Amino acid sequence: MIIFSERINGMYRDVRGAIKEHDKEVIQNLVKEQLAGGADVFDLNIGPVKGDSLEHFVWLAQTVKEVTDKPISIDSAKAKLLAEVIPAVRKALPDTKLVVNSCTAAPDYMEKLIPVTADAGAGLICLTMDQDGVPGNVEKRIECGATVLMGAMEAGIPIEDLYIDPITLPVNAAFKQQGFVLEAIQQLSMINDPAPHFIIGLSNVSTKCLLNHLLNRTFLVMCLAAGLDAAIMDAADTDLVEAAVAAEVLMGKHLYSDEFIKAWRIQKGI
Amino acid sequence: MIIFSERINGMYRDVRGAIKEHDKEVIQNLVKEQLAGGADVFDLNIGPVKGDSLEHFVWLAQTVKEVTDKPISIDSAKAKLLAEVIPAVRKALPDTKLVVNSCTAAPDYMEKLIPVTADAGAGLICLTMDQDGVPGNVEKRIECGATVLMGAMEAGIPIEDLYIDPITLPVNAAFKQQGFVLEAIQQLSMINDPAPHFIIGLSNVSTKCLLNHLLNRTFLVMCLAAGLDAAIMDAADTDLVEAAVAAEVLMGKHLYSDEFIKAWRIQKGI
Repeated sequence: MIIFSERINGMYRDVRGAIKEHDKEVIQNLVKEQLAGGADVFDLNIGPVKGDSLEHFVWLAQTVKEVTDKPISIDSAKAKLLAEVIPAVRKALPDTKLVVNSCTAAPDYMEKLIPVTADAGAGLICLTMDQDGVPGNVEKRIECGATVLMGAMEAGIPIEDLYIDPITLPVNAAFKQQGFVLEAIQQLSMINDPAPHFIIGLSNVSTKCLLNHLLNRTFLVMCLAAGLDAAIMDAADTDLVEAAVAAEVLMGKHLYSDEFIKAWRIQKGI
Repeated sequence: MIIFSERINGMYRDVRGAIKEHDKEVIQNLVKEQLAGGADVFDLNIGPVKGDSLEHFVWLAQTVKEVTDKPISIDSAKAKLLAEVIPAVRKALPDTKLVVNSCTAAPDYMEKLIPVTADAGAGLICLTMDQDGVPGNVEKRIECGATVLMGAMEAGIPIEDLYIDPITLPVNAAFKQQGFVLEAIQQLSMINDPAPHFIIGLSNVSTKCLLNHLLNRTFLVMCLAAGLDAAIMDAADTDLVEAAVAAEVLMGKHLYSDEFIKAWRIQKGI
C-alpha cells in the first residue's frame, strides 16, 4: 500500500509551532520518524496557522524536501488556496512528485483544481462529495467520485496518479458511514480498468474516540480488504503498519514469509 | 459475532492428556477461561486421542456441560463417527443446543449427517468442499456451500441454525486462498434471505506461522468486513476479541460508545 504520512499537519501542536517559528528541526525529525515507519508520501497540511498560507506551504515543502525525495501531497480544503500553492510548490521543487489533496465534485473546485493539477504533472485525490457536503449514502458518493475522476482523466491526468477518497467520518458521530466507505470502495473499483487508487484519511474514523488506535488499525484492515491501497495515516504507529502489511499478505499482495514484516521493511529499505 | 471456542481440541497437548485421563479440571478451567473471554459456543474435537471416540466425545460434552449451558459443537471430519456421536450426545444432554461440525457436499456425508442433525434439532456447519477436496477457486466453493445448505434446508433445519464455512487454509501453504474465502462469503451472503451464518476455523490461516496472532486478528477483521458473523477461535486472545468487537462497531453492528469493549463485555455478562 501507499502510506501517506499524516503527521506533518498543523492540527498537531508541535507542527503548528514549527510552522509559526520556521523550526526546520521539528519537521525534519518527524519526517525521519515517518520514513522509518514506512511513509511513501508526505501529506502537508498547515492546519489553523495564521499568516501567509502560500508561504507556509512552500516553506513546509522545502523543509521536507531537504530530508527526503518522496512525493509530497498538498492538503487543503480551500480550492483557491490550493490553486495558488500548487504552482508555487512546483516552482520551488521542480523535480518532486506532487499530489493535490483534494478536489470535490463541486464545479468551482473542479474548474480551479484540475487544470493546475494537470499543469503541475501532479496526482489528484478525488473526494466523493460536492457542494452539498458529504453524502449520507453510497450512491451519491459513487456519483461524486466518478465525476471528479472522469474530469481529471479528461484533462489528461494518468489513472495511476488518481486517488478516490470515499470520505471517512468519525464513528462516534456518524456510525453508519463506515459501511458506506467500504461499499463505495468496492463499487468504485470497477469504474475503470486499471482502477484508480483508493485512499482514506484514516484518523478521521476515530476523532475524539478513546480507543483510537484500535479503531484505526481495525478500519484500515477492513478497507484494505475492500480494495483500499493507500491511506493518510501515522506511519510511526507500528501496530497499525503491521496490521496493514499482514492484511496485504493475506490479500496475496505480498509474498508470505515467516518474517513478512521484516521482509516488507527490507524491501522498502527501512 | 458468535464466538465458537476452539480451545477444547485434542490437538492441544493439555486437552489431549485430559481426555486420555478423564481429567475434568483441565477441561473445565479452559472452559471458564474461554467463557471469560466471550465464548458463545464450545467446539469439541477429540483430536488424535486413541480409544473409544464416541465415549470421549460424550465425556467431553458432559464435562463442559457441568460448567456452562452454552451450545456445544461436535467437531470431526469423520462422517460415520459424527453420525454416531450426535445422537449419543443428544441423549446424554437432552437440553443442550448442538451444532454439527461439519458436513461436506459429498453425497455420503450429506446422507449420513443431515438426517441426524435434523433429528437432534442441531445446527450444521456446511463446508464448501466435496469428495474432491477443497476447491482452488471461488465458484466451486459457492456450488458446494449451496449444495449442503439447500440439502439442510430441505430437511427442515432452520436457516438460523445453518453455518457456511468457506474453508480457511494456511497462508504459508496456500497463499491465494484467503481472497477466495472473502469472496465466497460475500457472494454466498446473497444465497438466502435471511442469510445463513458464516464461520471460519480462524487458526487454520496461520498454522505454523511465526506471526500467528497478528495473522489471526487481521484475517478475522477482513472476514467480518466481508460478512462473517462467527468464528472458531481462541476467546482468550484478548487482542483478537477486541479487534473483532471494533470491527463490529465499525460495521454498525454494535452501538459505539467511548468504552465499547467494556460495553460489549457488560452486554455479554462477562
